[in-house]
Amino acid sequence: MAFRLFIRIFLLAYLLASAPARSLELAGYLPSWRDTPAKLALLEFVTKVTDVEGDFFVPPERRIAVFDNDGTLWSEEPWPVPLEFVFYRIRKLSPEHPDWANEQPYKAVLANDTEWLRLNGRGAFRQLSAVAQAGISTDQYEGLVQEFLANARHPGTGLRYADMAYVPMLELIKLLQAREFEVYVVSGGDLDFIRAYAPLVYGVARANIIGSHPAYKLDVTANDVQVLRQSETGSVNVGGYKVVNIHVHIGQPPIAAFGNSDGDLQMLRYATSGDGLSLAAILDHDDGQREFAVSSGSARLAEEAKGRRWLRISMKHDFDSIYRVSGQ
Amino acid sequence: MAFRLFIRIFLLAYLLASAPARSLELAGYLPSWRDTPAKLALLEFVTKVTDVEGDFFVPPERRIAVFDNDGTLWSEEPWPVPLEFVFYRIRKLSPEHPDWANEQPYKAVLANDTEWLRLNGRGAFRQLSAVAQAGISTDQYEGLVQEFLANARHPGTGLRYADMAYVPMLELIKLLQAREFEVYVVSGGDLDFIRAYAPLVYGVARANIIGSHPAYKLDVTANDVQVLRQSETGSVNVGGYKVVNIHVHIGQPPIAAFGNSDGDLQMLRYATSGDGLSLAAILDHDDGQREFAVSSGSARLAEEAKGRRWLRISMKHDFDSIYRVSGQ
Repeated sequence: MAFRLFIRIFLLAYLLASAPARSLELAGYLPSWRDTPAKLALLEFVTKVTDVEGDFFVPPERRIAVFDNDGTLWSEEPWPVPLEFVFYRIRKLSPEHPDWANEQPYKAVLANDTEWLRLNGRGAFRQLSAVAQAGISTDQYEGLVQEFLANARHPGTGLRYADMAYVPMLELIKLLQAREFEVYVVSGGDLDFIRAYAPLVYGVARANIIGSHPAYKLDVTANDVQVLRQSETGSVNVGGYKVVNIHVHIGQPPIAAFGNSDGDLQMLRYATSGDGLSLAAILDHDDGQREFAVSSGSARLAEEAKGRRWLRISMKHDFDSIYRVSGQ
Repeated sequence: MAFRLFIRIFLLAYLLASAPARSLELAGYLPSWRDTPAKLALLEFVTKVTDVEGDFFVPPERRIAVFDNDGTLWSEEPWPVPLEFVFYRIRKLSPEHPDWANEQPYKAVLANDTEWLRLNGRGAFRQLSAVAQAGISTDQYEGLVQEFLANARHPGTGLRYADMAYVPMLELIKLLQAREFEVYVVSGGDLDFIRAYAPLVYGVARANIIGSHPAYKLDVTANDVQVLRQSETGSVNVGGYKVVNIHVHIGQPPIAAFGNSDGDLQMLRYATSGDGLSLAAILDHDDGQREFAVSSGSARLAEEAKGRRWLRISMKHDFDSIYRVSGQ
């Protein structure tokens, strides 16, 4: 193992030192990555699929890359950010609802009772979500999300959430886009939530966000057509549904996929099921010092990743810096 | 009315004669259009929203144009082409099913009994569709559609269906794309069907097709992930659903929309509901000589189009030629 690692680092040094301008230019896109085998694998992949004279060339119209969002492009600890938004909204609305102080699940949010919230899970979250964000137009909802992102701060780092996007992953998106990849975010999180910040923070266009979403209803008046968010679920974008929605939205399999949990397993498989060169990677949250040390997916995901030689990216070892700015 | 027409034609002549190179270049994109007020309206719109110094400038990332498919980009008479495909498949499969000769709805297809088919409508079509195209992968399905498009010919013109795309509309798509519009096809027809030919025939990418589709199921094997088409309906993309799906896929309202039936009404409204300059147009099938003389939508659509000053494009008066090649 140590020998293979040595070989790969040697190859990276070789690539960086002896390669022509193109590879050096590629490496220049990833300044927040350390010179590790993971970085080498990413550079090798991009170099090969864009080398028109090589055996692994993929034409631009087939260069599709998909990224999971929560836990892959930004933190999902201690709670996924869309849930933090729901808590924020409940706190904002609480002055109009004095009864909430004694009524669950509101009480737990207002008292910051994380234990109760973890125990009561999905049911509580669904009720809170409905109160916090249903019945308004998607435009109004985006405005609320932007207000949240401008003001709220992560309980651990004290950073604004948009500043907690992982800079190395943003650099990777930029590198892929510069090499004519069409980059999509494919998330179990809320579509309208991600659209409120992804164009600015990730550099990914609104049309390239695929997410879960509530049932929508039209509000048609004489001079306006608005899309309203309902409290019922419309589409859930996890697991196999990620693949189906990639088909519906993009119409072809990705050749590169990045995730961090079992909800990404089918998407990672889909990306690596074609004939040509492809890349699937799992981001490991193994940095208890700078972020969180939590397991990325189940033993099943780990086994499949090993069997299929998917890349594992270690936040601890492969990321030189994580955030754009430092926390408090 | 005649005077207003004269004024507009005069304006067009003026625009074409006196305008700087840019407008002439724009007009050059529409060689199959006659110099009528409709052409003028289209050129004026594109000129205004792309004029960075003018009052109506729209930045490229907001230049979204949506086109209905059947009846707007190609013929839907005597049957929508996806239905002709189903009939074609039934005829192809019939040697394996000798009983079909005496069993409806197959019998009607094999005997070309259009009267029976029109009388028995949706139920029959659903049954035929299920037999013709369910349970196969989307890749297999696209292969079958391409085989159909390469071989089948329209019963009236004798042309291949791909040659029955309306050339003036294709020129319009090209003009919009050249002016940094993102062009989408938003159709009640089958998503996978349109993807089988739209990139080549329309120049619209796979990811820019929004259509109806069956329920999908994944077929995951050790080395492959395939998306299978089921016989159940998955998503129906007509009327208000066109608006919801534009939100889900694109994430912002179009500023230009083109349709030809009541199923496009909400989409046309949505395109013209914003604050900036926008354009909605209805294609009139009023050319019994060169195509078909059928009404484009109900009295309600006509009234709304009039009240909102939507553009009406006349195939008879505004199209100089219709198809890329001549029929038999």
